[in-house]
Amino acid sequence: MAEIKDVGRLPADYAANGFYGQDILSVSQFDKEKLAYIFGVAHEMRVLVERFGSADLLQGKILANLFYEPSTRTSSSFMAAMLRLGGQVIPINNVQYSSVTKGESLPDTVRTLESYADVIVLRHPEVGAAATAAHYARKPVINAGDGVGEHPTQALLDLFTIVEDLGSVQNLRVAMVGDLKYGRTVHSLTKLLVNYDVTFDFVSPEILAMPEDVLDVVRRHGHSFRVTDSVHEVIGDADVLYVTRVQKERFTDLAQYDRVRDHYVVDEELMTKAKPHMIVMHPLPRVNEIAYGVDDDPRAAYFRQMRNGMYIRMALLAAVLGKA
Amino acid sequence: MAEIKDVGRLPADYAANGFYGQDILSVSQFDKEKLAYIFGVAHEMRVLVERFGSADLLQGKILANLFYEPSTRTSSSFMAAMLRLGGQVIPINNVQYSSVTKGESLPDTVRTLESYADVIVLRHPEVGAAATAAHYARKPVINAGDGVGEHPTQALLDLFTIVEDLGSVQNLRVAMVGDLKYGRTVHSLTKLLVNYDVTFDFVSPEILAMPEDVLDVVRRHGHSFRVTDSVHEVIGDADVLYVTRVQKERFTDLAQYDRVRDHYVVDEELMTKAKPHMIVMHPLPRVNEIAYGVDDDPRAAYFRQMRNGMYIRMALLAAVLGKA
Amino acid sequence: MAEIKDVGRLPADYAANGFYGQDILSVSQFDKEKLAYIFGVAHEMRVLVERFGSADLLQGKILANLFYEPSTRTSSSFMAAMLRLGGQVIPINNVQYSSVTKGESLPDTVRTLESYADVIVLRHPEVGAAATAAHYARKPVINAGDGVGEHPTQALLDLFTIVEDLGSVQNLRVAMVGDLKYGRTVHSLTKLLVNYDVTFDFVSPEILAMPEDVLDVVRRHGHSFRVTDSVHEVIGDADVLYVTRVQKERFTDLAQYDRVRDHYVVDEELMTKAKPHMIVMHPLPRVNEIAYGVDDDPRAAYFRQMRNGMYIRMALLAAVLGKA
Repeated sequence: MAEIKDVGRLPADYAANGFYGQDILSVSQFDKEKLAYIFGVAHEMRVLVERFGSADLLQGKILANLFYEPSTRTSSSFMAAMLRLGGQVIPINNVQYSSVTKGESLPDTVRTLESYADVIVLRHPEVGAAATAAHYARKPVINAGDGVGEHPTQALLDLFTIVEDLGSVQNLRVAMVGDLKYGRTVHSLTKLLVNYDVTFDFVSPEILAMPEDVLDVVRRHGHSFRVTDSVHEVIGDADVLYVTRVQKERFTDLAQYDRVRDHYVVDEELMTKAKPHMIVMHPLPRVNEIAYGVDDDPRAAYFRQMRNGMYIRMALLAAVLGKA
Repeated sequence: MAEIKDVGRLPADYAANGFYGQDILSVSQFDKEKLAYIFGVAHEMRVLVERFGSADLLQGKILANLFYEPSTRTSSSFMAAMLRLGGQVIPINNVQYSSVTKGESLPDTVRTLESYADVIVLRHPEVGAAATAAHYARKPVINAGDGVGEHPTQALLDLFTIVEDLGSVQNLRVAMVGDLKYGRTVHSLTKLLVNYDVTFDFVSPEILAMPEDVLDVVRRHGHSFRVTDSVHEVIGDADVLYVTRVQKERFTDLAQYDRVRDHYVVDEELMTKAKPHMIVMHPLPRVNEIAYGVDDDPRAAYFRQMRNGMYIRMALLAAVLGKA
Repeated sequence: MAEIKDVGRLPADYAANGFYGQDILSVSQFDKEKLAYIFGVAHEMRVLVERFGSADLLQGKILANLFYEPSTRTSSSFMAAMLRLGGQVIPINNVQYSSVTKGESLPDTVRTLESYADVIVLRHPEVGAAATAAHYARKPVINAGDGVGEHPTQALLDLFTIVEDLGSVQNLRVAMVGDLKYGRTVHSLTKLLVNYDVTFDFVSPEILAMPEDVLDVVRRHGHSFRVTDSVHEVIGDADVLYVTRVQKERFTDLAQYDRVRDHYVVDEELMTKAKPHMIVMHPLPRVNEIAYGVDDDPRAAYFRQMRNGMYIRMALLAAVLGKA
């Protein structure tokens, strides 16, 4: 990670933030200092967009947006981030139909694209794909999700939303709700949150409980946590309610699914029991785990979360290209 | 419609045209005054493009071009319109492969995209989809066709082409030819034309006749019209010949199709009977209803029509974003 | 070809290079003088990108990037070329899903797109498609490959790579290796190289030998050449080793394939026998015909080749639009 990649000449006013010319592969790259730096830049990006719409910080730079599996949300977010900084984007969204299906290896595809672009964003169905790409690329690679592996910008935007909405991550009670077993987002967010003053509530059906290795991380950092199977038990205490979808397909016994499904639905009635300044988060897309009636509640943070994703990605793109 | 949506700060020199921060959902939003305004701006856009190629009126603005069904023509036209005004575009053309297939609702997709973009163009196979999207979106939504519902920018570009090519919509005889039953474009154009000094000829096989509700609109506005089944009867009188395709698939009796098909084909021989300053229009794509030999006739307006589509979309994008 | 197409007003400082307003359809358009001109401009583009990243030479210009078959590499390269010159791109990559599948003819599609764009790049599976498009288009058309026909920008970037890496095309021994029968790239490159001081080695299995008509061109220009079936025989003499893939599917007798396959693999051991300043080229994608271990050898030119493709396309876009 110490190697500085080829991102053009260093600007005279460059601040040594440690991101210049780096890949962004995992949340484990981010200590509290680095998080504070990126959140500071992301906040500036928010101010910039709210005031001016866009800037020309990355004018003349090109992002190769390489998606091996479809994700409208994430690809659009990176694209908007690059465009709002004055950069340009080569979108490669349908690799199933492209030359990569002729059997070309990921390293060759990445080395081809970096001959056209200045930075590569990669979404890939296989764990470790981003690290492989980064190993071969001379330009920075940003991981936009590699299978059940990492999706670091999602975890960063989640934490950034907490910071922006609640002011800090001090003395918070965070409830994670739904499918905690397969949910990549709750694992990554938990691993980031253990660095702060947080108490956890893990709310899920037993068969979708938070994995032991994640609980071990929580224990190792000395945080207390509760485990329960109903959101009703935690709603009154939560400062953050992070909701994920409980998928019917996870259940072999559908009767069991029918018994538990309502324990994980957030609706207006449930919200009457919540604190006045808590926030409800969701990585989206949602199906029915948050009722539409909640959307107009100021505590519903999930659309702000989307927008924060753009700010975080603006901050990362600017940082690795030496312009933040 | 009175609500002004979030399109950024109002420019100091803003002219109160009534489009600022509005959705564009239906031709019924356009009275003669509004049509005159948009056509005036579209004409300026034409001059701008012919003289300078492009401008920076919408610099820093982003369009989310959301197409739930493919339409190269319309999506490219909106894209070109935004780019020629200095704006940028997030194209979302393959939603069948994207997160929206994971079951996400249109309102959630729209609210996600508006957190990245400043204006949304929507093409959707279902009637009413654009209105639904507009209801939930805080940013302006422009309807680029919702099933058999509306496709307002098509109707506007059709009427604009008549104005540009013939100077005005005064004392014109307009013949609509082909499939008048299912043709969304001829319905919308007729509803716009009834506001002007126009006489109609409706030319179609009986099973593809103009629907009674559209004829009622014509009658209610006091216009006279003829109904016939052969273009040969109207060609000598027409100032505008608006041709649409008669699809074989509409006929259960193919012998009937074979009997009538040639009544709706425009070729060089037919054009010898037409007025010297009339125009032939077509929404494209065509198959064989206009012979290629007609293309070089100066009265062939269908490729100018395409270009006018870009000017109309430039005008609308600038208008709703407060920059026209 | 003498007709000058509509590319806007001529700049005051326009240099009469013969490309202004022209289509780029075939390598046969390029004599030595034109090649020298384009390579000169491409070299300037390289300096420009290495120094500044991008320029605003084509600001306000729009490229319609029309791909009837997928090719991530070529479409991304043209896109990057246009963006690095300050232009914009309308990517049309999925025509199988678009209105062109409704039966629209290529001429109509092209005439529609040119009403939005300033230049059209076309990739099409049928031989002659680019010429057809150019015939109907009033804006310049650049052929990005039409089936087994031409792919002129590939041949130009190949020759440009030789010039950039070896300084000139004087007194060179060029070995072409692999599938010489079906390889469009080796045919086109050979036809360009016969204009220079070059000796050829054609290395292939007998069933994939260079076609007689290409050999005739070589003979007619008075060049000597050798024909062999093993790369080991030519490696020591080659200044340029142009490698293409030998596809298993070309063989009816798989035992024959297994016997010959290793004769066409370039690996580190083979490279120990090559000259110190020769170069290894490949049009990519590769499968296993060049070992990954060769990639770090400074003589491995295939990724530089990709980058040179962008410079050549920048040069051509600027030239046909009168800005080079």
